[in-house]
Amino acid sequence: MCQLLGMNCNTPTDICFSFTGFQARGGLTDHHRDGWGIGFFEGDGCRVFVDSRPSVDSPVAELVRHYPIRSLNVIAHIRKATHGRIALENTHPFIRELWGQYWLFAHNGDLKAFAPNYSGRFLPVGDTDSERAFCHILDTLAQRYPKVPPTLDVLHADLVGLAADIGAHGEFNFLLSNGRWLFAHCASRLAYIVRKAPFAEAHLMDQDVSVDFSDVTTPDDRVAVIATTPLTDNEAWTTMLPGTLLSFENGQAHAFGNNTTRPFIKE
Amino acid sequence: MCQLLGMNCNTPTDICFSFTGFQARGGLTDHHRDGWGIGFFEGDGCRVFVDSRPSVDSPVAELVRHYPIRSLNVIAHIRKATHGRIALENTHPFIRELWGQYWLFAHNGDLKAFAPNYSGRFLPVGDTDSERAFCHILDTLAQRYPKVPPTLDVLHADLVGLAADIGAHGEFNFLLSNGRWLFAHCASRLAYIVRKAPFAEAHLMDQDVSVDFSDVTTPDDRVAVIATTPLTDNEAWTTMLPGTLLSFENGQAHAFGNNTTRPFIKE
Repeated sequence: MCQLLGMNCNTPTDICFSFTGFQARGGLTDHHRDGWGIGFFEGDGCRVFVDSRPSVDSPVAELVRHYPIRSLNVIAHIRKATHGRIALENTHPFIRELWGQYWLFAHNGDLKAFAPNYSGRFLPVGDTDSERAFCHILDTLAQRYPKVPPTLDVLHADLVGLAADIGAHGEFNFLLSNGRWLFAHCASRLAYIVRKAPFAEAHLMDQDVSVDFSDVTTPDDRVAVIATTPLTDNEAWTTMLPGTLLSFENGQAHAFGNNTTRPFIKE
Repeated sequence: MCQLLGMNCNTPTDICFSFTGFQARGGLTDHHRDGWGIGFFEGDGCRVFVDSRPSVDSPVAELVRHYPIRSLNVIAHIRKATHGRIALENTHPFIRELWGQYWLFAHNGDLKAFAPNYSGRFLPVGDTDSERAFCHILDTLAQRYPKVPPTLDVLHADLVGLAADIGAHGEFNFLLSNGRWLFAHCASRLAYIVRKAPFAEAHLMDQDVSVDFSDVTTPDDRVAVIATTPLTDNEAWTTMLPGTLLSFENGQAHAFGNNTTRPFIKE
């Protein structure tokens, strides 16, 4: 099982605290040693750091942990290889451009016999089921909306449908973002927390590290953090219901009518 | 004027030495302080490090200088903003996927009144003339070869034509790579060197740093380094003729019949 981490905020926020706990899962407190990656949106731009070395040994992860990059949207991933070799081209998050926007995608799970028909506009570079799913999602959206993106409610409905379809092939937890919206799909395991005023102290589950968010925030800040399993042991995380999609914007989930996709049931 | 640096090799090689001299031009020995970036191909994968801070002050540049990433193809760029704000989305190299391959592009110069018609398949995210040129090149190639890439000689001829056309709008020095081939276009200023056995000592022009390549190579290695101006002061660099395109593979330039594009003449 891989691990996912996402952040969506209403003000540029650094992810150093959450990443510290998350990084420990890449070979220290957990066994996801087959590479890792993190992508930060900054304005319309996007920075992706990927490494096929375990995140606990990676000098790039050390840099990310200590260099506070402030971002409205972040997607990170630690990999336990199931489909696809250990190689840089198989390391999440994947990046593509659609409608003049960068899109980032990371997946946790395992899709079986998933071989979509591509138009050719978005093709996988590596050999993971995950990148195939990402290309299929963007390909479908580009065919439906060739010139400009639809509104968020329409896109949400499209992704509900796509998540249900692709989820027929296996376990399909994913995070997807265009730098403004962050979509979180729970097939089996995903949890989130929305931090807002009054801010309090949080303590990591994977390392003995605390931060008092009231020291580093303003009262208007709102930050949603999404992870495969909760990252802190003294806060109330919401466990997502298997078979649901949430669309985050400005640090909170929209209350769209239909969030229901397809839960993953282990056989 | 921005600065370009490229490397094309027949064996994975780290660029730490060349990058040390190149990085100094980002605010120390030269005045290109408006961001920098470097992209490394590793297998089919690609890592891009970009930073809108000057390369001399950048913790990311420090990482790149000390972490030997071995690659067959590298493209780096230091920016002096002409078109487009100082922002991450305007920082080279730019990356897109075509034919299931990642493509990297960096540009030095200034294009005036360059507003191509896009099909919509590749759209700029930022607001530079450079990203517009990159999207136009890939868009044109994707329309000519929708499914699979042409052979190198055909692609070379296409790029000669595109470089001449786009060069009508201004100064268009660029580096372009898909991880196997590296295309270097000289409109006004570009130089290269092919290092091969017998290897000797090289001394940087911008810093008092030397390396003896015979210590770190095998007799079969071949490494082409391409830069806006020579990086070392004790080796024989070849100055490219303005208005020529070279296609590098396995550390050497192919001898194609037609390399002639359009030189940039300063008015």
